[in-house]
Amino acid sequence: MINIVVAGFKGKMGMTATKMVIENEKFALVGVYDPHATEKNLNELNQFSTRDVRVFQDKEELVKEVQADVWIDFTIPDVALKNTCFALEHNIRPVVGTTGFSESDVKKVQQLAKEKNIGGLIAPNFAIGAVLMMEFAAKAAKYFPDVEITEMHHDKKLDAPSGTAIKTAEMIFAERGYHQQGNADEKETIKGARGADYEGMKIHSVRLPGLIAHQQVQFGSVGEGLLIRHDSFDRSSFMTGVALGCEKVMSLKELAYGLENLL
Amino acid sequence: MINIVVAGFKGKMGMTATKMVIENEKFALVGVYDPHATEKNLNELNQFSTRDVRVFQDKEELVKEVQADVWIDFTIPDVALKNTCFALEHNIRPVVGTTGFSESDVKKVQQLAKEKNIGGLIAPNFAIGAVLMMEFAAKAAKYFPDVEITEMHHDKKLDAPSGTAIKTAEMIFAERGYHQQGNADEKETIKGARGADYEGMKIHSVRLPGLIAHQQVQFGSVGEGLLIRHDSFDRSSFMTGVALGCEKVMSLKELAYGLENLL
Amino acid sequence: MINIVVAGFKGKMGMTATKMVIENEKFALVGVYDPHATEKNLNELNQFSTRDVRVFQDKEELVKEVQADVWIDFTIPDVALKNTCFALEHNIRPVVGTTGFSESDVKKVQQLAKEKNIGGLIAPNFAIGAVLMMEFAAKAAKYFPDVEITEMHHDKKLDAPSGTAIKTAEMIFAERGYHQQGNADEKETIKGARGADYEGMKIHSVRLPGLIAHQQVQFGSVGEGLLIRHDSFDRSSFMTGVALGCEKVMSLKELAYGLENLL
Amino acid sequence: MINIVVAGFKGKMGMTATKMVIENEKFALVGVYDPHATEKNLNELNQFSTRDVRVFQDKEELVKEVQADVWIDFTIPDVALKNTCFALEHNIRPVVGTTGFSESDVKKVQQLAKEKNIGGLIAPNFAIGAVLMMEFAAKAAKYFPDVEITEMHHDKKLDAPSGTAIKTAEMIFAERGYHQQGNADEKETIKGARGADYEGMKIHSVRLPGLIAHQQVQFGSVGEGLLIRHDSFDRSSFMTGVALGCEKVMSLKELAYGLENLL
Repeated sequence: MINIVVAGFKGKMGMTATKMVIENEKFALVGVYDPHATEKNLNELNQFSTRDVRVFQDKEELVKEVQADVWIDFTIPDVALKNTCFALEHNIRPVVGTTGFSESDVKKVQQLAKEKNIGGLIAPNFAIGAVLMMEFAAKAAKYFPDVEITEMHHDKKLDAPSGTAIKTAEMIFAERGYHQQGNADEKETIKGARGADYEGMKIHSVRLPGLIAHQQVQFGSVGEGLLIRHDSFDRSSFMTGVALGCEKVMSLKELAYGLENLL
Repeated sequence: MINIVVAGFKGKMGMTATKMVIENEKFALVGVYDPHATEKNLNELNQFSTRDVRVFQDKEELVKEVQADVWIDFTIPDVALKNTCFALEHNIRPVVGTTGFSESDVKKVQQLAKEKNIGGLIAPNFAIGAVLMMEFAAKAAKYFPDVEITEMHHDKKLDAPSGTAIKTAEMIFAERGYHQQGNADEKETIKGARGADYEGMKIHSVRLPGLIAHQQVQFGSVGEGLLIRHDSFDRSSFMTGVALGCEKVMSLKELAYGLENLL
Repeated sequence: MINIVVAGFKGKMGMTATKMVIENEKFALVGVYDPHATEKNLNELNQFSTRDVRVFQDKEELVKEVQADVWIDFTIPDVALKNTCFALEHNIRPVVGTTGFSESDVKKVQQLAKEKNIGGLIAPNFAIGAVLMMEFAAKAAKYFPDVEITEMHHDKKLDAPSGTAIKTAEMIFAERGYHQQGNADEKETIKGARGADYEGMKIHSVRLPGLIAHQQVQFGSVGEGLLIRHDSFDRSSFMTGVALGCEKVMSLKELAYGLENLL
Repeated sequence: MINIVVAGFKGKMGMTATKMVIENEKFALVGVYDPHATEKNLNELNQFSTRDVRVFQDKEELVKEVQADVWIDFTIPDVALKNTCFALEHNIRPVVGTTGFSESDVKKVQQLAKEKNIGGLIAPNFAIGAVLMMEFAAKAAKYFPDVEITEMHHDKKLDAPSGTAIKTAEMIFAERGYHQQGNADEKETIKGARGADYEGMKIHSVRLPGLIAHQQVQFGSVGEGLLIRHDSFDRSSFMTGVALGCEKVMSLKELAYGLENLL
């Protein structure tokens, strides 16, 4: 049984993480933390009415009162950095979801973990499925240089292509380099038909109401095709990755950056 | 049993049509025609070695010697126009595959069919699946104005988007008019990501080795999606439509332009 | 502007319908009804805190106080039958979502609508996308007798195949009759591989966590394939159909059973 | 430049391999071999009329006359075993496509390769895309135990599920073991709906005219899905793998069994 605390438990991701820890048989939720919380116990919240778990507004008090193995953190970047250091200093393994750490922030906490000789994880993306999709795409690109990426999102999204699509393209580029695709003389009778060009590969962005977050990476070669697709239906998809992180950090002796390093 | 002749039988489409007529139990192949053929009988060709069917170099001779109900024509446009008139004049129903007839050509042969009081069909596209895809897409657009088209072809193709994609977009436009899609403030961080714009709807063209000819039309609405996809794997896909045409012209009293008018 | 009341507004579907009416510019929400409601005004509910709409516990009072064009009903079958009759008697057009009406119930309310000379709609399924999928599938089956259905749902679902899959198969059967598919000598080396058999067509049921409600109908013919797919991501998908129903009943002079009759 | 001979060049696979070697800039075709060939030179065949390559009916003569680095073999199993040994004995690296070797056959030729200190490859399946699909599926199963396999083939195929589907299931089983999927109380209202059961995972076999050989492996987890799909459109799809094998065996010092060991 792994003893876990959740910091930032009142945010959307924090609530989802709290629920995941409660429902996972390998985990025990020993406390939740939020300096702005007004509750004293988690059971004051409707959805957790049967759960007797202490709420802490003060992290010093938390580490005195409960014995935790893992510190899940879904707070804002500034707070998350302080929390991560605090957890490590108290020999609690951090599992942190943030895209906001600078390279030097990451180095700093990695150094601290090394000194403490304990594991930890900081992951900008906890969706295992998305991480696997990118890893598989990069590997397939070694053998199939011709590839197009189609990402599909709800029509409120502002930017195209998506960050995941660009990251996928970067990882494919690292394997195969520049490679011109399509007919050398191809021409667009309507501008944009062939999509965005990234080092010779094409990226297409579909935006439709009803869609959530989907991406497919499509490879073609003589007489065959290979397609890798990830569908993210809701925020809870991140929790499989958070749970995996909580288990893995128990045996790690360093702090990993990126979920892919644990797969 | 419908008696059929195939004109232009030595071309790729003609050969495929000849094979289809032979294999279809409802049809009897009573003759094949090509002014440049050197054979006297179809059984001189390896693949038809067991088929005793007369080859004609002269169409006047053909109509004297055999009694045909339907004249399948896969020749070049100029020849096809003459052949279509010739067939109608001899009370044979034409089933013609060509994209090359002008509007006045079509009117002329339709007038001739009316005078003769017999059926006929000229179709630029005999792929029933593609025709159904376009028809379904147009109907769905009445209820789902948000739609994107993705067409996928082998990477030798020169033009993007494909003719079928543009025709599909035209048919959708006829139902729903102009409709701006996506976030009004959306921006492309790499140009072309959002595809080609056709009256507010987006068209994406994928080109990869291994692909043949595929298209999907994707509709999105609150909480749901509807997708219609057609895959064309080889030229033989046209033959379901040719066979349907041969049957339908038997009961028609006029010449139809476009397979969709028989569905 | 169409004036609408929502009956059963405190249930899940009722709440979703209430939200839809409020957000649709063509509609005005003139009242909500639930005999068990404890609120006096919709604005007592958090999510509708800015909406001043009267809550009625008594339908007689409702028809005295407000002028409604359409009565949306998402109550249980017994109540829905009474409510539908009540609405018609007060010249309000019912738009009812229920699978529980018997044939004689439907006939009864259709007779009443005829007497009143007003429109109405009872629909077991309001997902326009699903209704279109079934209609397109039935039409395609005329030309492509070879078809397999794959329906995909979350892994809590008890029955396989789904009701929608069976209804789709029935509609396809009505067009093409019995037709044996696959190799006449095919054999399953593991039982069940070829799926459920419905009059010669095969139905496959996929059950996986994360999935919601999806179905694809796949047709195959010489050299080509045609696929129609519907994805339902959440309950709100029904609301496009409810909205369409509210608009259409305004010009109807009879009560339609099944959304397909309005498409 | 790698010097290559093709054994069994008159079979379908042999012809395809011959064409591939000729078209690949890194390869030189130094001879083709078939004891039953009646030609003396490859240029006697229509499709290779411009290619001056010697045809050998006797393999002893072949090794005397030409200097080969790689021996591609697409003959029948009995012959392939003898040819593989013969090639190794003459210090030519074998690249062999066969499913017919016993375990002891494989050991024997691996021992011989070790003695000769040269590379070689025997592969039951040369489709890199299919091999990658299986490898990715096995890896994904570590994190996503819930998985269903759908394989789709033309409707002439006799057995269901396909060999590739069963091999994929075996590889997934090796990673995750037995795992019951779906609702524990689920029931089939039509037998077979839930597909074939392989250690708790389900396999569905679709058979339709027009299809060639396709497979998708679909994983589901809380709020997300991951799908890996391979499409094989024709026999030429194997040639990317054969070409890769020819390159890789040049630096190998042992004989590999299975293309996956070179990826």
